[in-house]
Amino acid sequence: MNYCLASSAFPSSHTTLLRNKLSPFLFRRNRSHQSLQLCRRNFQIRAMRAVIQRVSSSSVTVDGRIVSEIGPGLLVLIGIHESDTDADADYICRKVLNMRLFTNESTGRGWDQNVMQRGYGVLLVSQFTLYGFMKGNKPDFHVAMPPEKAKPFYASLVERFQKAYKPDAVKDGVFGAMMKVNLVNDGPVTMQLESPQSSKNETKASTES
Amino acid sequence: MNYCLASSAFPSSHTTLLRNKLSPFLFRRNRSHQSLQLCRRNFQIRAMRAVIQRVSSSSVTVDGRIVSEIGPGLLVLIGIHESDTDADADYICRKVLNMRLFTNESTGRGWDQNVMQRGYGVLLVSQFTLYGFMKGNKPDFHVAMPPEKAKPFYASLVERFQKAYKPDAVKDGVFGAMMKVNLVNDGPVTMQLESPQSSKNETKASTES
Repeated sequence: MNYCLASSAFPSSHTTLLRNKLSPFLFRRNRSHQSLQLCRRNFQIRAMRAVIQRVSSSSVTVDGRIVSEIGPGLLVLIGIHESDTDADADYICRKVLNMRLFTNESTGRGWDQNVMQRGYGVLLVSQFTLYGFMKGNKPDFHVAMPPEKAKPFYASLVERFQKAYKPDAVKDGVFGAMMKVNLVNDGPVTMQLESPQSSKNETKASTES
Repeated sequence: MNYCLASSAFPSSHTTLLRNKLSPFLFRRNRSHQSLQLCRRNFQIRAMRAVIQRVSSSSVTVDGRIVSEIGPGLLVLIGIHESDTDADADYICRKVLNMRLFTNESTGRGWDQNVMQRGYGVLLVSQFTLYGFMKGNKPDFHVAMPPEKAKPFYASLVERFQKAYKPDAVKDGVFGAMMKVNLVNDGPVTMQLESPQSSKNETKASTES
């Protein structure tokens, strides 16, 4: 069982009492702001991230040459955390392919069909900057999976998408290359997704307590 | 002071004892997964969100007509939460304009200069889908600020950017319109940002406890 509570709910006498009882089990900070941020950080950073854009078309250019392109479908930017496993990849793959982001043309109903039902394309592009945390105004990327580990992991993610949908409908960029990613965001429709690694978060919380 | 803790840190005998002591102050669930998600949700959903893409160029087309365009700079998709205030707008404006996402051409140093130092453009586009939470595979947008309130709020955000930078460098889309947002993501570089509304979160946590 997990608890999450705010100081404003505690009379101060209770706070001291409870702090003494709880201190071996809690990770806490003197300043509530810091504590909240730590809590928030623990729940946010241990997951695979995706930014999904519904596109009319999209392509990837490297050194002025188009290396990959799709027509209508989804451009999916993928940020891999250093702790990510196959379970994260499974979740992101399943959710992205099944998200109902398209209108059903025959009924006119919005948010009704997924990319597979429309037979549309999926363009996957690795994007380590999704794990950029701002230190002041400068992004810091240290929790992104290091490239030597992320490259094969990302390749297996692309394969996972291709197997779950169909190989020729799923394209990708060039891992680690400087790319120009062209897209026409249709709507626009942009979604943010994180794999829900509660088990990982629990482990982290307990080791830090 | 805020606490966030995981059940795995508690021996079961302590859990019962502590639950009795803490029950008036806690919002809890029988299943740890639900509780963790609730905790996570409370820390995530009460903030302004932005997805920032570093672009070579970007434009917005409505009904086949280009209504706004920039050259190199930032395309910023903005998701407004129903509880957002001027403080959230202040934070997002300041952070976006000061994020060091550009290479300093004279020194070759990466992640060194912000959009203002380069004199580049900023294209703001409202994007309520950033507040889409998946209910199964269907996105639900009920925590996004309703359009009648979001429209003037978003307009004031655009003005805020224009005042903080310079009016002709900051463009926007057409609120509520069906748009095609064209962009060339350069790198790619995509950042996610949320306003850190710890005070709002504390209030919510205490009212839900």
